[in-house]
Amino acid sequence: MHSLGLLTQLNRPSSAKIILLVLDGLGGLPMQSGGATALEAAATPNLDRLAQEGTTGLTIPILQGVTAGSGPAHLALFGYDPLKYDVGRGVLAATGVGLQVASGDVAARGNFCTLDNDGLITDRRAGRLPSEAAAPLVEQLDSIEIPGYTFEIRHVREYRFALVARGEGLESDLADTDPQQVGLAPMDVIPEKPQSKASAELFNRWIDASRSVLAREPLANGLTLRGFSTNPELPQFGPSYGLNAVCVAVYPMYKGAAKLVGMEILEFEGEDPADEFSALGPRWEDFDFAFIHIKATDSRGEDGDFEGKAAVIEQVDRELGQLMDLEPAVLAVTGDHSTPARMRSHSWHPVPLLLWAPDTVRPDDSQGFGERICARGGLGTFPAKSLMALLLAHAGRLNKFGA
Amino acid sequence: MHSLGLLTQLNRPSSAKIILLVLDGLGGLPMQSGGATALEAAATPNLDRLAQEGTTGLTIPILQGVTAGSGPAHLALFGYDPLKYDVGRGVLAATGVGLQVASGDVAARGNFCTLDNDGLITDRRAGRLPSEAAAPLVEQLDSIEIPGYTFEIRHVREYRFALVARGEGLESDLADTDPQQVGLAPMDVIPEKPQSKASAELFNRWIDASRSVLAREPLANGLTLRGFSTNPELPQFGPSYGLNAVCVAVYPMYKGAAKLVGMEILEFEGEDPADEFSALGPRWEDFDFAFIHIKATDSRGEDGDFEGKAAVIEQVDRELGQLMDLEPAVLAVTGDHSTPARMRSHSWHPVPLLLWAPDTVRPDDSQGFGERICARGGLGTFPAKSLMALLLAHAGRLNKFGA
Repeated sequence: MHSLGLLTQLNRPSSAKIILLVLDGLGGLPMQSGGATALEAAATPNLDRLAQEGTTGLTIPILQGVTAGSGPAHLALFGYDPLKYDVGRGVLAATGVGLQVASGDVAARGNFCTLDNDGLITDRRAGRLPSEAAAPLVEQLDSIEIPGYTFEIRHVREYRFALVARGEGLESDLADTDPQQVGLAPMDVIPEKPQSKASAELFNRWIDASRSVLAREPLANGLTLRGFSTNPELPQFGPSYGLNAVCVAVYPMYKGAAKLVGMEILEFEGEDPADEFSALGPRWEDFDFAFIHIKATDSRGEDGDFEGKAAVIEQVDRELGQLMDLEPAVLAVTGDHSTPARMRSHSWHPVPLLLWAPDTVRPDDSQGFGERICARGGLGTFPAKSLMALLLAHAGRLNKFGA
Repeated sequence: MHSLGLLTQLNRPSSAKIILLVLDGLGGLPMQSGGATALEAAATPNLDRLAQEGTTGLTIPILQGVTAGSGPAHLALFGYDPLKYDVGRGVLAATGVGLQVASGDVAARGNFCTLDNDGLITDRRAGRLPSEAAAPLVEQLDSIEIPGYTFEIRHVREYRFALVARGEGLESDLADTDPQQVGLAPMDVIPEKPQSKASAELFNRWIDASRSVLAREPLANGLTLRGFSTNPELPQFGPSYGLNAVCVAVYPMYKGAAKLVGMEILEFEGEDPADEFSALGPRWEDFDFAFIHIKATDSRGEDGDFEGKAAVIEQVDRELGQLMDLEPAVLAVTGDHSTPARMRSHSWHPVPLLLWAPDTVRPDDSQGFGERICARGGLGTFPAKSLMALLLAHAGRLNKFGA
């Protein structure tokens, strides 16, 4: 039996509330052999105290040795088997900026790029075109019309946008048009299955139409599309777990992932962990589960900025009191995957996990929160998709299996 | 491939004998943060020495976060996937007291209860009716006859009995009649599937007939039935593993589980661990596997009696020499699930495991037997259903897989 179905079957009402705090890309590596990771190097007195009172472990996002993208990594944290449920980047981006992607619609992530006179890409991100320059271009692209179909487009951030096509007989098995390097032209949309041929032609017609709109732009005179996908029709978080869940996130993609499983998305001002934490307080009485997403740990890791990553972790640690004041019965602090600054990319290394639940946790000998400690932690090393079961159990929200 | 089938395929004869000592509900929690668990608090010089000579780990009975009932938890210890094999409480109880439950028979667990003048339950356990009062009532109920069907009933303990119905076309998808609270009447037997309708009517007729038998009883003037189930036709332990297995248990349900997988049930006098251990000695030459079940650890846990649970563990430790005198090649000491006194119930926390096998074990740094030590033990944290493979391997009873 699939564990999500089992958890639904065992669901028991409770008033105990759960906070899942995700520091994106939390896991790391030392910059040199024998050194500390960013999490270990960061001064985190509050997290250390929670680890002493609680327990630690490591989670494997997908499978040993497999580096997770953000989409599947978050699905796993939400308790969905990431090998079973395939959520495309297009759907995540579109949903994250508030576009509806119904079953049968096809969503794509778009990037503006810079082309030379021969139509070859000179910058895949259009010089990291700022949002204020990109937004009006997106508005112009919104005027493209193709009879029999509807297109909806929305700006995401900087050079990124999301595009959704609607109409009869659309299929999402389409290849990305980004050649992934400069000096090449954007590719046509190629169908990956015979039945996607009409969809490929439709998107190619839309791209053709975009050329005249963008022709005279100095930086953003081209675009690429990627992550073609439709609504994966995920089981919904609320009825599956008996939880009223809210998402507190700054970046659209994570809002998209949360929205696809049916979480309510909290709107608030600001971008810092402190802003996110303080936004939850006034609404906390309406929910019994909060997913809080901190992006900057991953961004600093991708930048190769070890000290910057540690600084973000320290920032979260300093603000943690705001979350503790909400008196959750269960608090988990973890990442969706590892992003070692040393590698400047996501990695497969298991992800540190801290589980705090004063009434029900089995304490171990964890004296702080870091990769070495978590590797010896009482929870052991286990698949991230099992985390939800642990959170529910520690909140008293699961009945016994069998007599 | 299912692991049970793999183990059968790899089976190799050996004279090395295995003892599996199960302290029911062994795993626990500290009563307050930072404290010791009952197992950690108990003085266990003999278990500690075995842990030093052997290795330790933690087992997960079902899945992370899922609290196991006794039936599935024991199936897992016996190497059966508890999510695949569903054994009902009725079958366990009936088999445990020596009733045969063939495929197609329907077994149920029964409880005597006390009803008021309106037929509402005032005590769901009939004031914990003592065995000497319950046994004659069970004998009277044995006289109930319904043409075309056979009923067999047997007393279990105190207010509990087991009932088996035999006849054509019986189905076991029937709901419990216990409303689970006082102030309500016992419910009728309700079919959970259309094809169980005739079975429901049959049991309801039996319940009707029981009313006149019990009408003038002061305490036990009513009854409830639960755990309707038929023989799950489990693969048999002996041929699956090449083991002649014996069960040493006091409580009927555990005898039932052992019998369903084909173990021989040892009959003996007494109820203490010492009685169980000493009963095995004279019969040990007939077997190469012994499952020994100690109930009191779970009972004290359910009572919330932390010191009592520790005392039972110490009692087992003191008597352990009796088992060592039998010179097993492999001894495992573990539980079927956790029952923290702090929670007064079964819990999902992984279960301490001690594996001692002087000729084949890989030692670790375990200096004793307790939850914190087991969490760092050499065996790691793994599914309980994999334990049998480890026991067989350490006894030299498995061939190499592949060339």
